[in-house]
Amino acid sequence: MATINDIAVKLGISKSTVSKGLNNARDISEEMRKKILETAVELGYVNKRRQKERKALCILVENMEFHTPNQFGHDIILGFKQMAEPEGWTVDIVPIDMEFQRGIPYGVFMMEHGYQASFILGLTLLDPWMNEFRTSRIPAVLYDNYVKGNPTIASVGCDSQEGFELAVRYLVSLGHKKIGLISGPLESYILKARYNAYINAMEKYGLEINENYIGLGYFVNDSTRKYVPKLLGEGVTAILFSHDVRAISAITECEDRGIRVPQDVSIVGFDDLPMTAHTLPSLTTIRQDRAAIGKCGFYALSSLLNEVAIGSILLRATLIIRDSTGPAPSGMPGLSGSGSVSPGCFPIA
Amino acid sequence: MATINDIAVKLGISKSTVSKGLNNARDISEEMRKKILETAVELGYVNKRRQKERKALCILVENMEFHTPNQFGHDIILGFKQMAEPEGWTVDIVPIDMEFQRGIPYGVFMMEHGYQASFILGLTLLDPWMNEFRTSRIPAVLYDNYVKGNPTIASVGCDSQEGFELAVRYLVSLGHKKIGLISGPLESYILKARYNAYINAMEKYGLEINENYIGLGYFVNDSTRKYVPKLLGEGVTAILFSHDVRAISAITECEDRGIRVPQDVSIVGFDDLPMTAHTLPSLTTIRQDRAAIGKCGFYALSSLLNEVAIGSILLRATLIIRDSTGPAPSGMPGLSGSGSVSPGCFPIA
Repeated sequence: MATINDIAVKLGISKSTVSKGLNNARDISEEMRKKILETAVELGYVNKRRQKERKALCILVENMEFHTPNQFGHDIILGFKQMAEPEGWTVDIVPIDMEFQRGIPYGVFMMEHGYQASFILGLTLLDPWMNEFRTSRIPAVLYDNYVKGNPTIASVGCDSQEGFELAVRYLVSLGHKKIGLISGPLESYILKARYNAYINAMEKYGLEINENYIGLGYFVNDSTRKYVPKLLGEGVTAILFSHDVRAISAITECEDRGIRVPQDVSIVGFDDLPMTAHTLPSLTTIRQDRAAIGKCGFYALSSLLNEVAIGSILLRATLIIRDSTGPAPSGMPGLSGSGSVSPGCFPIA
Repeated sequence: MATINDIAVKLGISKSTVSKGLNNARDISEEMRKKILETAVELGYVNKRRQKERKALCILVENMEFHTPNQFGHDIILGFKQMAEPEGWTVDIVPIDMEFQRGIPYGVFMMEHGYQASFILGLTLLDPWMNEFRTSRIPAVLYDNYVKGNPTIASVGCDSQEGFELAVRYLVSLGHKKIGLISGPLESYILKARYNAYINAMEKYGLEINENYIGLGYFVNDSTRKYVPKLLGEGVTAILFSHDVRAISAITECEDRGIRVPQDVSIVGFDDLPMTAHTLPSLTTIRQDRAAIGKCGFYALSSLLNEVAIGSILLRATLIIRDSTGPAPSGMPGLSGSGSVSPGCFPIA
């Protein structure tokens, strides 16, 4: 563990100057203070004194709405605070973006604010700080993201494998055989995990894995518009979606084309966003218990702060059956609104 | 949630008799008491009053030594108690075997002793209680074992995938290309997980996966005797073992045959048992932090008791490099003691 002396030697300055920098004293230059903090992070220095003074955590949020109970991040943050605050931690919520990350290294940001650890929501593999997480010594828990080989970083999320297995089993019980997947591009940890979960679930139930049953696209509505008719043209009778937002977009798309849900195609989402109970038809989906994710985030952080090197926690997934799934169509899907294919041309294996 | 009334109706007896049975009153027959407890378990009844009266957990242990610090289970149990007892839980250690499990259903055992939850070490997929865990409503955490689809049962263990990836990466850096696996039979969850981890790690580093590089056998010494020469005969220069005990047996076997470790073959264990530092040569192995496993076991149980449905927690694995691994032999392995193969016949790819 690096000491104040190590930082002083490295920078060729006195220990008292280092101490001033670490404790935000006013009588050193901003430039020097920054240099001290950056060197402290580089050497893995831990400010024990500030740790004892103040129990402070932050939740870093990117690309995720969280202000109202209907928004995805709300209950995650609530669950985390429900565990953390009774134990005397203050929890700050800090929205971040790529620009912000480029402006300041993660370690310097954390040290500047005296945060001992962070819970991180919404980052993708492309985010600038992800690189720093590979070597950071500050305990952090990532939601739906994973950093290899760093024992101070843990991951929490919902078990995609269990979720898609439940969905595929249910669809098979309804007579579906050709089941498709529509997802975002595989540039995030969680989308890769869901893609693999889909492949494994299909394999497990002995169903055909066919690249023509899979559509990956960045823009939600564009890819729905492209892939829903394409998959139906391949004879797919049920589609899993990587997220509810895509599944809801597909319901709208089907309505526009006169494709009936679930008579012509069954649709399954992932997340159980509050709005999914109120779409028409209401959405069958895989529930992530978001308050539980927040609670687990705190469990994982506590364990890292106690030097118990949790790598990952996976929560159980639950299949919520609503009206967007039904028996597989038997020969006459009736896709009267679908321009590119005519009804009756979908042989059901 | 079932009530005392539900049990009374089901058995056609009065509520006060049910209550007596649930609270171990002396003035009802043993037979009736058992029937009441079994019905309570069947209906999913939770004895809230006893829960409040007494905070009691048990650790069920099968096939695992734990009495002295050198034994595998010791630190797991210690870690668990270190978390649980300060929070006011009493923790009983209960050694069990197949016979014991056949004698009493798990739910009845738990209810009879007033345990609210259990931490379970050492059971395999063949154990009689495993079947009951599929539907049990009593929170339980299994070490190195997994029950699908039951949100009151969680799993904790060390990340086999990460462990074998670290080991294979290290062996590749030493020039090894043909890397073998010797393991027990794939009838336990954890051995299946390690087998898959081996396959994935080999794939990840672009190494040949060949069934002739793999030896699976029940009896430790018998399978070592059979598979070590067989794998070396295939040109394998490094062997991963599913457990330290097998790796240590292989070191002895190599010594008997005049095969030098690590000059002729590198050996990597899994677990980091205390004795592995003192074998000759000392064993390179993948460490499971056993105290951390115990602590995580309690984290997971706490979360289940708070209705946060953790499915699994995986701890980080660490590669501990000692003397049983070295550079890949370059053409003349010098297996003078190996009867079935002559030296020099191992082409190194």
